[in-house]
Amino acid sequence: MKPYSELTREELLELKKRLAAEYHEFQGKDLKLDMSRGKPSTEQLDLSMGMMDVLNSEMDLTCEDGTDCRNYGILDGIKEAKELIGDMIEVAPDNIIIYGNSSLNVMYDTISRSMTHGVMGNTPWCKLDKVKFLCPVPGYDRHFAITEYFGIEMINIPLDEAGPDMDMVERLVSSDDTIKGIWCVPKYSNPSGTSYSDQTVRRLARLKPAAPDFRIYWDNAYGIHHLYDDEQDNVIEILAECKRAGNPDMVYKFSSTSKISFPGSGIAAIATSHNNLEDIKKQLRIQTIGHDKVNQLRHVRYFKDIHGMVEHMRKHADVLRPKFEAVEEILENELGGLGIGSWTKPKGGYFICFDSLDGCAKEIVAKCKKAGVVMTDAGATYPYGKDPRDRNIRIAPSYPPLQDLVTASRLFTLCVKIVSVNKLLHEMDQPVPLQAGEN
Amino acid sequence: MKPYSELTREELLELKKRLAAEYHEFQGKDLKLDMSRGKPSTEQLDLSMGMMDVLNSEMDLTCEDGTDCRNYGILDGIKEAKELIGDMIEVAPDNIIIYGNSSLNVMYDTISRSMTHGVMGNTPWCKLDKVKFLCPVPGYDRHFAITEYFGIEMINIPLDEAGPDMDMVERLVSSDDTIKGIWCVPKYSNPSGTSYSDQTVRRLARLKPAAPDFRIYWDNAYGIHHLYDDEQDNVIEILAECKRAGNPDMVYKFSSTSKISFPGSGIAAIATSHNNLEDIKKQLRIQTIGHDKVNQLRHVRYFKDIHGMVEHMRKHADVLRPKFEAVEEILENELGGLGIGSWTKPKGGYFICFDSLDGCAKEIVAKCKKAGVVMTDAGATYPYGKDPRDRNIRIAPSYPPLQDLVTASRLFTLCVKIVSVNKLLHEMDQPVPLQAGEN
Repeated sequence: MKPYSELTREELLELKKRLAAEYHEFQGKDLKLDMSRGKPSTEQLDLSMGMMDVLNSEMDLTCEDGTDCRNYGILDGIKEAKELIGDMIEVAPDNIIIYGNSSLNVMYDTISRSMTHGVMGNTPWCKLDKVKFLCPVPGYDRHFAITEYFGIEMINIPLDEAGPDMDMVERLVSSDDTIKGIWCVPKYSNPSGTSYSDQTVRRLARLKPAAPDFRIYWDNAYGIHHLYDDEQDNVIEILAECKRAGNPDMVYKFSSTSKISFPGSGIAAIATSHNNLEDIKKQLRIQTIGHDKVNQLRHVRYFKDIHGMVEHMRKHADVLRPKFEAVEEILENELGGLGIGSWTKPKGGYFICFDSLDGCAKEIVAKCKKAGVVMTDAGATYPYGKDPRDRNIRIAPSYPPLQDLVTASRLFTLCVKIVSVNKLLHEMDQPVPLQAGEN
Repeated sequence: MKPYSELTREELLELKKRLAAEYHEFQGKDLKLDMSRGKPSTEQLDLSMGMMDVLNSEMDLTCEDGTDCRNYGILDGIKEAKELIGDMIEVAPDNIIIYGNSSLNVMYDTISRSMTHGVMGNTPWCKLDKVKFLCPVPGYDRHFAITEYFGIEMINIPLDEAGPDMDMVERLVSSDDTIKGIWCVPKYSNPSGTSYSDQTVRRLARLKPAAPDFRIYWDNAYGIHHLYDDEQDNVIEILAECKRAGNPDMVYKFSSTSKISFPGSGIAAIATSHNNLEDIKKQLRIQTIGHDKVNQLRHVRYFKDIHGMVEHMRKHADVLRPKFEAVEEILENELGGLGIGSWTKPKGGYFICFDSLDGCAKEIVAKCKKAGVVMTDAGATYPYGKDPRDRNIRIAPSYPPLQDLVTASRLFTLCVKIVSVNKLLHEMDQPVPLQAGEN
């Protein structure tokens, strides 16, 4: 089919009528589908049920070093959990603290500690007039929510297939000492699904920040969350790269098993330099006696080692892959060549990222909702919920069963068409703007 | 035996020699015993091993309301966990948020949030020149560590068998709006083992704070941790009492199952008014998607209801009671009538509280350590680790096996005697101070 931009007014009006009829049909189906969050499906949760059998009352719940996991103690996590998570995120166990069930919570606590106590002896941020963060966009709404909550000013940084605009990042970070951090989801990024190039990681590690307490907030959320065996993104390990670049303390790396074992009942971790770890532990030992070691042990005994974890992730991939492919196929079949949207085809992670024509995203999402399909709010992928071009929509294919996903995706593409046609018609109806020189 | 104060110099010197010989004997035993922390013993941990069997892979892990506990969601805890904890702490389920594994962490987060965002719309504490807390003493060192960490000035409030000195509390709280809180362990207090009287709770609930953001930090750590079936302390439920007194928002109540199921792998909670809950949730939803619901479900399925929990606590009591009684017996047999120390005889909780002669505590603890028995640091029960009279020592009988506990307690009483004798001899050697009028 021809690109919509080449259609005449009459063709568009004709199309509009047909699309409205289709939409009406969808409304009759009384749909209640959710493509809004990166939630694993029931089928994926079932994959980890063996976890419930791995510890029982006949078992010895002591670690290799003799620590009884049932009692108080061990501030930074049991050794074998550090080893497992270390292998998962390509960092030495000694550089890791194991936390509770949520890496988001670890990120929040990291920012909160920096507000009240500063980073490695620097002024607490709450004592400063202004603190800023760089936010590659589109990005993860919950990251932005944390920085917004603490009154940190967020600066949009365009993100492309290679990662954030590094010219802009370098310029800002080296010239402005109120910039204290950058949010990064380096692999299978939320929501774009792309991964940072080697060049991007190298340039990040070589930043020369004006602020001594500038840190890269490296959310390694999808490190082993591949969709394919043969085609996998690889991202340079950032701690090692920062060390090589002479910036050993410049990064906090966050991760969890939320989308590996059970979301909400996994284990989370931070990996960073020994200097940062010391700084963090000064606070951590005030905050808690220790995190849930029984659950740490449960994870270790279940996965055994990184190979076990990788094999487990292949099962997740087997569930997720058909869903991603189904959405991509529908997008291609329904929207390919129409010039009214573009989308990513990630090799891992949890999201497909869709860009509509400018100014259409909010209306598309609203139209989906009216017919019973909930998408992530348009704008959510930008700081303050404000997508300047109102075009970015995050598609989360993981949760609905395949058949529902197909229905929801069809409705989505229909809504994209309807809103695009309306936009084009609306533009045709506008008076032609005056050219320079005219009067 | 006669009180030490009535002994002559020669008798004391003779005694000193005999005690030194006994101490020497202890040193030969190469002891390595720990009475420093309120840690459950292995025997107690074994009581909860059934918890490891209560969930298995054949089971449905959905809540009564259909929520799949394995997935993301439910910010404030599953309904049935709120009911169980509600019954445990005598509060309606609707007034509760279930957290992760540590009530200390909840208290820390509560203070941290007040620092950065204030309490119910009041100025964030980090923007104030001065913030103060009242600290009934002796008290819990980890409470004091949190307030010290945040630079909050701590004011000692004497604690007796009825609770904190309420005249002093009322006077300070009503006149000084920089006082934002008071730490309370109302039942089987850490470390004194005593419980607040009805009169004390009523006066607390009727406080007229100068600061609108003043809160009572009510650490309900030992609410159902009785040692006896027939003799149990009862404390008036503080939320209800504050509500009756027209101060519904004045209290945060903290609790956990740390010393009920497994320390470090239990569930924690806050209970407070709806206004406070709203205030807290504004922050909580930024900090996390939700806490570990599988573990919440595990607790509910294991204990079933409050009766199950109470029966479980009787088993803990059966292990703990002989230990408390053994220590008390040794204290009585060895130190009774000597006038060199006094101690509490709690009906629950985890501690016995010992007061030596003034200026002796640090030396007693040091002497114990030198012979292989670790006690809580002297001073730890006071803000900034400073016991003004250097006399308070916290005894934690729970962790060592009974036989070790007997040995450790004997050594402890021996050290009390040695240090007391030294003090009395030292006082005899001092020149008699000049009386007023002399010159």
